[in-house]
Amino acid sequence: MEYVRNAWYVAGFASEFGEDLRRVTILEEHLVMFRASDGRVVALEDRCPHRLLPLSMGRRIGDTVQCGYHGMTFDTAGRCVRVPGQENLPAAAFVDAYPVHERHGIVWVWMGEPEKADPDTVFDLPEFSDPRWCTHQGGALHLKAHYLNVAENLVDPAHVSFVHPTTLGNAASENVPVHVSTSGPVITAWRWIRDAPPVGFFQKFGGFSGNVDRWHYYYLHLPCTAVIDFGSADAALALPEEERDRGVRVFAIHLLTPVGPDHTIDRWLHIRNTAIEDDAASEQIDTLLAAAFAEDKAVLEAIQREEARPLKRRPIRIAIDKAPNVYRKRIRDLIEAERTRDLGAPVKPAYVHHD
Amino acid sequence: MEYVRNAWYVAGFASEFGEDLRRVTILEEHLVMFRASDGRVVALEDRCPHRLLPLSMGRRIGDTVQCGYHGMTFDTAGRCVRVPGQENLPAAAFVDAYPVHERHGIVWVWMGEPEKADPDTVFDLPEFSDPRWCTHQGGALHLKAHYLNVAENLVDPAHVSFVHPTTLGNAASENVPVHVSTSGPVITAWRWIRDAPPVGFFQKFGGFSGNVDRWHYYYLHLPCTAVIDFGSADAALALPEEERDRGVRVFAIHLLTPVGPDHTIDRWLHIRNTAIEDDAASEQIDTLLAAAFAEDKAVLEAIQREEARPLKRRPIRIAIDKAPNVYRKRIRDLIEAERTRDLGAPVKPAYVHHD
Amino acid sequence: MEYVRNAWYVAGFASEFGEDLRRVTILEEHLVMFRASDGRVVALEDRCPHRLLPLSMGRRIGDTVQCGYHGMTFDTAGRCVRVPGQENLPAAAFVDAYPVHERHGIVWVWMGEPEKADPDTVFDLPEFSDPRWCTHQGGALHLKAHYLNVAENLVDPAHVSFVHPTTLGNAASENVPVHVSTSGPVITAWRWIRDAPPVGFFQKFGGFSGNVDRWHYYYLHLPCTAVIDFGSADAALALPEEERDRGVRVFAIHLLTPVGPDHTIDRWLHIRNTAIEDDAASEQIDTLLAAAFAEDKAVLEAIQREEARPLKRRPIRIAIDKAPNVYRKRIRDLIEAERTRDLGAPVKPAYVHHD
Repeated sequence: MEYVRNAWYVAGFASEFGEDLRRVTILEEHLVMFRASDGRVVALEDRCPHRLLPLSMGRRIGDTVQCGYHGMTFDTAGRCVRVPGQENLPAAAFVDAYPVHERHGIVWVWMGEPEKADPDTVFDLPEFSDPRWCTHQGGALHLKAHYLNVAENLVDPAHVSFVHPTTLGNAASENVPVHVSTSGPVITAWRWIRDAPPVGFFQKFGGFSGNVDRWHYYYLHLPCTAVIDFGSADAALALPEEERDRGVRVFAIHLLTPVGPDHTIDRWLHIRNTAIEDDAASEQIDTLLAAAFAEDKAVLEAIQREEARPLKRRPIRIAIDKAPNVYRKRIRDLIEAERTRDLGAPVKPAYVHHD
Repeated sequence: MEYVRNAWYVAGFASEFGEDLRRVTILEEHLVMFRASDGRVVALEDRCPHRLLPLSMGRRIGDTVQCGYHGMTFDTAGRCVRVPGQENLPAAAFVDAYPVHERHGIVWVWMGEPEKADPDTVFDLPEFSDPRWCTHQGGALHLKAHYLNVAENLVDPAHVSFVHPTTLGNAASENVPVHVSTSGPVITAWRWIRDAPPVGFFQKFGGFSGNVDRWHYYYLHLPCTAVIDFGSADAALALPEEERDRGVRVFAIHLLTPVGPDHTIDRWLHIRNTAIEDDAASEQIDTLLAAAFAEDKAVLEAIQREEARPLKRRPIRIAIDKAPNVYRKRIRDLIEAERTRDLGAPVKPAYVHHD
Repeated sequence: MEYVRNAWYVAGFASEFGEDLRRVTILEEHLVMFRASDGRVVALEDRCPHRLLPLSMGRRIGDTVQCGYHGMTFDTAGRCVRVPGQENLPAAAFVDAYPVHERHGIVWVWMGEPEKADPDTVFDLPEFSDPRWCTHQGGALHLKAHYLNVAENLVDPAHVSFVHPTTLGNAASENVPVHVSTSGPVITAWRWIRDAPPVGFFQKFGGFSGNVDRWHYYYLHLPCTAVIDFGSADAALALPEEERDRGVRVFAIHLLTPVGPDHTIDRWLHIRNTAIEDDAASEQIDTLLAAAFAEDKAVLEAIQREEARPLKRRPIRIAIDKAPNVYRKRIRDLIEAERTRDLGAPVKPAYVHHD
């Protein structure tokens, strides 16, 4: 088993779902999804139990889905309501239905045991609904990479100096130590680069030219949600850690969807505390972040190719790997717990106040 | 084993074979084929026994084929007649030769034990040589699909309403029961849709606008030949089943060539009893059928992809599957009989009068 | 094991290496190569021992290579000299370094045990440094073929009549016997076609129109270097074998790099004894040879595809296979000797005077 199943995974932004049938793949399973007449998003197994045709190739008849081969029809609970050519409905004529929860413009699907699905455990941040903050959906980056490698990159401040030297990082941070906290449900890694030149992002977006204090806080919520709180403030302010709101502060949120062993979708959005009604700023940030994420993509896809090749010797681990190592161990433990049916409580990637 | 070997399979339309060497793949075997000087089509194993170069990359020297690497040369029986650089011809220097039979513009190859090849068992229809009927070769549709799934689709009237709702079917037929006969050597499935609006095909081709009686007879000759007898007649005629010639009647013939586990060629042609010297009608029918077959192709290729994925549970079978189920069982039985050397008589996909 | 490891293999022409990091693949291993500040070419394992990112995706810092993910840095001996974020350098933080030797504009890498690398065993020819001869680098032909099949083709004069009938061969040579010598370290196959029309090459390049004596000497140096000495002289001269310099004489040199089981690079160059300062002649020969090698490529790639398919029976061997058979056996023996650690002396593909 490669995946934690009892967890909410992102199927897409709300705008991706409408009347049309849409195939979505999560944890190697194909789902057919659509927005029913009451506005709720429905997720069913995308495979007719008869001849296996994807139901997403069929058509909607009201709130039912009719298979495009022989017309077998299913309701939003996955129950078969019609088999053309016969009166009876076989007991085996059903498809799995998946719990769905939509919040803040994001559609989540529960991929595990349906009775364990609890909407209260869907990821949230108070800033999503705080008028002093501006939320902007970025894009959906497809990576030919395993989700563990993608997630690991999102709790790893140390790579920024080398992968993003002209956008999110610069040489000033190369040797600044990373702090790590792994005691709670969220794995956190952070560092401050004090009194140093601003990186490209904050030259362009924050307008800084003199030295700044810059922070990176990486919060990784198991299994697949990352929040990167980064920002800068005039170095003259000597900003304490808990007063980051006084600087230019941005949350970059990464919602990872493991599609398969070599395909992950990273849907990202950002929340910021300045220029909150400024669409041009949103676009500017999109452009800057998209450029940086393309740098990560190149690295992660190359690693994916290398991992598929024979190893000459065991890879080494170094000091900066602490948070990634803890993340991998927790995922392994969760998978093992599910495998042994000693499931305990479902994964709780709930909001933990970042300050 | 995936295939019935002791059977005639279609290598191509006669027009596909000329002086040039041509590679043809049937049951995963590569053949080199060409028309010899006496007009007969020859089929040899397409692999030099020396360094395995396909003979189809060589050249013809009269009625022999010379390998394009070192010049080893084979006659139409597959015997080696020259090895450059030496006098003797090694006993192992030969390629397999396959029995070939050409009839009605179709070239058939016997893929099993050569001594069992009987040209009298090649598929035929009296209408091919009846001047009151017009035969027109359509095209060659390549499907990324297993031949069993393609053939099954050709003895399955029930899919027409859902896959071809604007061309060969419409909603009127959705719930009309299918009759099946599996007692003889040909598996037959048929149904009549009485007193209903004409489907797209017969609006365009037959010119019907008022209600019609419409029929579909599907004849599946093992292993890989299907005849679909379909037509319409003015509903006012109340046409008896045996007088279908009084209506607009068309035979769509599908000649399946299993190329490999995920590649089948469907060469199709049609025979009709009206407009028999009207080339424009032939083209019109080609266009209509090609559009419908593209709909089948999309379905069958999607099923092929799904069948390659893990199953969560056993697919179900429903009432309309009777003919496909019998077809699959017969193929399995034939393969098993060949495997156990209890071969009995070869498959006889001979003509059975359809009326 | 598929490869002889204790041997020099060609990484590229000297012009392919400069300041930039360049990935090169030999025997399925990825190397990162660059020209250091002292002009020497360096070859390191192209994989960071930390997270496996190819070092070729990083950057040079002086004569060190910095990984593009977390900045781990290696010197030209493969030793780690920096791990950002920590003081100590783990013992396991290194990459393999490969011996490199550059000669006559060709860069060779030793793929086996480094202590066995001996530059004196790098392939050489006196004509490379003889002012009466002109050396010209041709191109790099990528073949989707196993190196054994490519090399075999280069000690096989018999294929020329059939693969290259309009360029390097013609019908006159079809039945001329091939001589083979396998007693020394170099496998040699040759033949003379006396008093016959000139082939296309020497019509165009040598300007011959009347009958010529034509020779082909194929020298195969294990594991992967071939020299083809071919030429023509006016038949009236009745040239003795040892006086080939009196005719138009060309050495076509093939430097094979096994990239993987279905990928070989054939870097080729030629040395000639006429028109030695005539750039147009070089281009003309390039064009002629490139056309002929494209013919070999088509054959060898087709064989590669056939070898991947099931065999119906064992391929046969014929008289002209003597040299290829000896070559394959020697390679097998060398691989077996390495496998059993009874390595003896390294492969010595050194120059043997051809006359």
